[in-house]
Amino acid sequence: MTEDMEIICVGNELLIGKTLNTNAHWLSKQATRLGVNVKRITVVQDLVDEIANVIREAIERKPQFIITTGGLGPTFDDKTLEGIAKALNRKLEANQKALAMVKGKYEEYARKKQLPTSIELTPARVKMATLPEKTEPINNPIGTAPGVRVDVGGTVLFALPGVPSEMEAIFTETIAPLLKQAVGDRVFCEKSMFVNNMMESHLAPLIDKVMSGNEGVYIKSHPLGVENKPHIEIHLTVTAKNKEKPAEKLLKAVRQLAILVEANGGKAIVEQ
Amino acid sequence: MTEDMEIICVGNELLIGKTLNTNAHWLSKQATRLGVNVKRITVVQDLVDEIANVIREAIERKPQFIITTGGLGPTFDDKTLEGIAKALNRKLEANQKALAMVKGKYEEYARKKQLPTSIELTPARVKMATLPEKTEPINNPIGTAPGVRVDVGGTVLFALPGVPSEMEAIFTETIAPLLKQAVGDRVFCEKSMFVNNMMESHLAPLIDKVMSGNEGVYIKSHPLGVENKPHIEIHLTVTAKNKEKPAEKLLKAVRQLAILVEANGGKAIVEQ
Repeated sequence: MTEDMEIICVGNELLIGKTLNTNAHWLSKQATRLGVNVKRITVVQDLVDEIANVIREAIERKPQFIITTGGLGPTFDDKTLEGIAKALNRKLEANQKALAMVKGKYEEYARKKQLPTSIELTPARVKMATLPEKTEPINNPIGTAPGVRVDVGGTVLFALPGVPSEMEAIFTETIAPLLKQAVGDRVFCEKSMFVNNMMESHLAPLIDKVMSGNEGVYIKSHPLGVENKPHIEIHLTVTAKNKEKPAEKLLKAVRQLAILVEANGGKAIVEQ
Repeated sequence: MTEDMEIICVGNELLIGKTLNTNAHWLSKQATRLGVNVKRITVVQDLVDEIANVIREAIERKPQFIITTGGLGPTFDDKTLEGIAKALNRKLEANQKALAMVKGKYEEYARKKQLPTSIELTPARVKMATLPEKTEPINNPIGTAPGVRVDVGGTVLFALPGVPSEMEAIFTETIAPLLKQAVGDRVFCEKSMFVNNMMESHLAPLIDKVMSGNEGVYIKSHPLGVENKPHIEIHLTVTAKNKEKPAEKLLKAVRQLAILVEANGGKAIVEQ
C-alpha cells in the first residue's frame, strides 16, 4: 500500500502569474522523500465555492492526506477555512484552543515590544481562530495563524498558511513526523544520468526495454536540448522498502540503460 | 462575460518535487495579461486514467479554454493524447497532417545534417502524430511534437509540449492571437504598494473599506515580513474594458488606501 496525498493551493496570486508556486514544489518534494505518493496538485482562486468544490472532490478520491496552503490569514480574501467548512457541511465557530494560540502570539509580540498595535482580539484576529467544528488547531512556530487538522473518514486534511516560512515550519514540526509514521520504512530513491547524441524518439524503445526488465523502477526522459540537438536527462526513481534495496535496483537499471545507449550510438554519462 | 481558462500540467516530475512548475506560472501570466480569467491549475501524474479524469472534470466545468502541458513526446510516459482520447471517448489514429509535420521536421534535421539517426518514421515518432479523432495538429515552431487543438462543445482545448521553449513558442504563435480575439478590448491592470509598521490583522478592515468603495478592484495583501515585523505588499488588480479606464481606477484605490494606512499609524510606500 502507498500513502497518497493531494496538495491544494489557494490563492489568486498563483493563477495570475504573480507568484511562482514554490509551496507546492517544496511540499511535494518533502512528501515524496518521506515515501508518500503525491497524486495531484490543484491551484484554486480565493472563492469559497471554488475552494469547497476542490476540497470535496479531493476527499471523494479518498487520499490518505490532503494538504492545503494559503488562505488562513486575517484579511477578507483568506477563505480556506470557510471553504473547508462548506465542503464538509460544518459550522464555523471560534475555537477556544486556537483563540488561546492567537492571543498568546499577540501577548508575546507585545512582551517583546514588537507589536505596533494593541493586543486586542479584533474581528480580523478572531477570524484566524474561527475554525470548522471538530477540527484541531496546529501550532504555528513562527507566525500567528494556526494550522488546522481535520479528519474526514480515512483522510487527514492539514490546512497550512501560504507564507512559505510558516508553511514549512508547521510541516516540519507537526506533519512530517506523522507522514513518516504512516509510511513506515519505505523510501524514495532517485538517480539521474544523461544521454548525448541520441534523439528522444530513438531512446524511447531502449527505456521501454529497461523498464520492463526492472520492476518498480520508473524511468522518465527530460529533453534539455531540442530534439535535433539532443541532450537528455534520464531520471530514474523507485519507492520501496529498505530491505528491497531500492538504490541497488536503480543502479542496475542505470547500467543496463547506459550499455544500450552506447550500443546504439549514443553517449551515456553516469555520475557516480 | 469573462473568458475562463483552466491549465492542466501532466508530469510526475512536477509531483515529486523535481521540477518547479514554471510552465503554469508562465501560461497563467500570459493568459491573465490577455484578459483571460485563469480559474484553476491542476497537476497530474503520467497515468492515462488520471489524465482522462482531470480533462473530463475540467470540460464539465465548461471553461472557454483548457491548456494542457506535457506528455506529447515520443516516450512511453507521454500519455496526454491517450488521456484526451479516453476523456472524449474518441479513437486515436495516425493524423495525416501531423504525420507530415513530424516527417517534415526529421527531413529538415537531416538536411541541416543535425540528425544523428535516420529519418525513418519509427513507432516512437509516429506516436507523436497519433491524435484523437477530430483534432487539429498545431505547428511547433522549434520542436518535433506538434501541439493539438480539440473543440469540445463550447470549450477549446490546446495540448502543448512540456519543454518550456516549445510550449512558449506554440502559445505565442498560435494561441495568444486566438485568446486576444476572444477577449476583445478588455485589459488586465495591476499595481503594487507596500505598507510598513502595520500588522496584516490591522490592515484587513482598511482593505475591506477601500474594496467596497471601488467596484471591480481586487486588493490582496501579501505579508513579506512576519506578522510581528510587518512589511506587507498590497497588490491591486482590475480586469476591465479600456474605456472604463482601469489604470485610473487602480490609482484611485491606491491613494485611498495609502491615506487610510497613514491615518492609522502605518507607513504607505507607493511607487510612481
